[in-house]
Amino acid sequence: MRNVYCVGVGITKYGNLESSAPELASSAAVEALTDANINPGDVDGMFLANCQGAYGGTQLHMSPLVATDLGMPNIPSVRVENACASGGCAFRLGYMSVAGGFNDVALVVGTESVSAMPTARSTETFAFGGDSEYEAKSGISFPGFYALMARAHMEKHGTTREQLAAIAVKNHLNGTRNPKAHFRKELDKQRVLNSFIVTDPLSLFDCSPFSDGAAAVLLVPENMIGRFENPIRVAGSGQASTPNALHDRQDLTTITGTSVAAEKACRQAEVKVKDLSFAEVHDCFTIAEVIALEDIGVYKKGQAALASEAGETAIEGIFPVNPSGGLKAKGHPVAATGVGQIVELVEQLRNQAGDRQVKNAKTGLAHNVGATGATVVVHILSNE
Amino acid sequence: MRNVYCVGVGITKYGNLESSAPELASSAAVEALTDANINPGDVDGMFLANCQGAYGGTQLHMSPLVATDLGMPNIPSVRVENACASGGCAFRLGYMSVAGGFNDVALVVGTESVSAMPTARSTETFAFGGDSEYEAKSGISFPGFYALMARAHMEKHGTTREQLAAIAVKNHLNGTRNPKAHFRKELDKQRVLNSFIVTDPLSLFDCSPFSDGAAAVLLVPENMIGRFENPIRVAGSGQASTPNALHDRQDLTTITGTSVAAEKACRQAEVKVKDLSFAEVHDCFTIAEVIALEDIGVYKKGQAALASEAGETAIEGIFPVNPSGGLKAKGHPVAATGVGQIVELVEQLRNQAGDRQVKNAKTGLAHNVGATGATVVVHILSNE
Repeated sequence: MRNVYCVGVGITKYGNLESSAPELASSAAVEALTDANINPGDVDGMFLANCQGAYGGTQLHMSPLVATDLGMPNIPSVRVENACASGGCAFRLGYMSVAGGFNDVALVVGTESVSAMPTARSTETFAFGGDSEYEAKSGISFPGFYALMARAHMEKHGTTREQLAAIAVKNHLNGTRNPKAHFRKELDKQRVLNSFIVTDPLSLFDCSPFSDGAAAVLLVPENMIGRFENPIRVAGSGQASTPNALHDRQDLTTITGTSVAAEKACRQAEVKVKDLSFAEVHDCFTIAEVIALEDIGVYKKGQAALASEAGETAIEGIFPVNPSGGLKAKGHPVAATGVGQIVELVEQLRNQAGDRQVKNAKTGLAHNVGATGATVVVHILSNE
Repeated sequence: MRNVYCVGVGITKYGNLESSAPELASSAAVEALTDANINPGDVDGMFLANCQGAYGGTQLHMSPLVATDLGMPNIPSVRVENACASGGCAFRLGYMSVAGGFNDVALVVGTESVSAMPTARSTETFAFGGDSEYEAKSGISFPGFYALMARAHMEKHGTTREQLAAIAVKNHLNGTRNPKAHFRKELDKQRVLNSFIVTDPLSLFDCSPFSDGAAAVLLVPENMIGRFENPIRVAGSGQASTPNALHDRQDLTTITGTSVAAEKACRQAEVKVKDLSFAEVHDCFTIAEVIALEDIGVYKKGQAALASEAGETAIEGIFPVNPSGGLKAKGHPVAATGVGQIVELVEQLRNQAGDRQVKNAKTGLAHNVGATGATVVVHILSNE
């Protein structure tokens, strides 16, 4: 198996962009090609993540369309959809393809355009990412799922709304330092607590937005990195699943797929969690950041919310989490999210993250979740 | 790179089945597991193809759902969508994963449930597989695309409606010998010619149906084949693209992606086209079988329709094509189609194809197309 490196990254602004998903994909990909200083003709495979193409945008079969737009009309390409983990899955397939010797220059793109949909329809279609027949059709959608998990976490570990609010405040502050973030406005804790309840105990500012956006990464094997500046190594890749439906789980305060995927990635990367410099985790709701940090093993069960409230996960803290602003403030363009996390890791590990630079960043972890954890993908990148 | 073998196959009946796509997927997968005599717990990765999950069936994120249903709730899984080539892409990813050492027992499943949709809606949503913005929105859908290709082929090579009708007759005859086929009724040429025109020059019986159905294949590396009966080797895998939109093509009588993908697969398999025993090709319309055979290189341009009319591609002919009945008669459950072709190859190469057995079958080719060739996937399997 070959070592694989990220040699080019691109990312659009996240937000309400009035562009189609293929257009956004091309924008991010062109930026990645420019960043790597390579020609479209050098790319020999594409892995494209898109979630809502069919239902929202009336475009299936998006990967060869984008490849043609980019001037690479003959390369093999696939579209991957695993709900909000689509991007992480596409990155992992691109990694596997280069590591396995099937591609020498793989382009991974995640893209989504959802803001043109009415919010109620978005919420409905995203609910299709769970166990649609039993969950969506009974009226429960993602804010409801995560509210159940938050309530269970509060009961079991004493987690408070104030602690969750501290995560929103931290991620919004980080977002002000990220020029590509959807939200670049500071929040204070009281505003989070006073915002209207979406599904008790989660209020508006506990929830990430629906964003439009795209992100792209170029991958090459080790023998090719000589011609690139600042190649960043993919040190570990892990993916695992958890039963889609909450009613199939034994414990709502944990997502077992996260623990399995993180352990696989760490084992491959030969690093311990305590040796990581920082992480981008899937904070679709504030409670999701808490559960992720505990399942990855950064904190023991019941400790992550306390630590976040104490400032440990700030950019200047002992373990920075979501320096990009996370899904909460950077935004959540569904299938782009997992690829955007990799872009953040690469920029941090190149020491090019500007105002939000994590000091002495050597090893970063990206954690991307589909639905309530039915799919979890974890990657570890390193500049060493 | 490891050699990879198919060690278990399963396929549902194709037709109007009144089951959901996840249910059909599980049926086919259980048959494949039983065929291979292995436990669900031995599977360590799943690659699931489904095309219409979101728009038609309100179920995104289908792969972990099916994995949970099958008793493998923790394995990594992805859903792939490349229109009608979704199945071929999923099989190729499964192959790459095992060849590259990422999985030891990979389950590939293709599944589709579309018959509950009104035909007009199906036709609309399938049109999203082309270049939706420029093509679907101007009112052209797949019968129209292939009619344009048929007309161009007639003008350039003198192909006739009678020759195309002979392909429908042959594939329907093959379908009568396949217990899983959607249509098991013989047709005579006059009936094809007299059937109503869908889009001139294609009439009803030039078109494949929308079917429900699923197919599954289990893949393992060479070092594990000792415990399985009749393992069939994946000798070559090729994938390529062609610009989605017909208006971006220079010649409507050829799909360049087919030539590229077939050549890659043959090169890897170290076989020449003339050495193949038979092929399953993507005959979504009768003209598509003609163009496929010419682009793969079985016949020179302008010769395939003549040869088909002369009986050369019958099961007893010199080069049997679509012994299963093809998309035309076996049926076309969209994302299942490409996996179902592999199932047919395996059954033929095991000498287990019953009434439709190709004599002395040693090497078979499967050719799966998305849209009008934006994605083409070719695999070559061998029992040697």
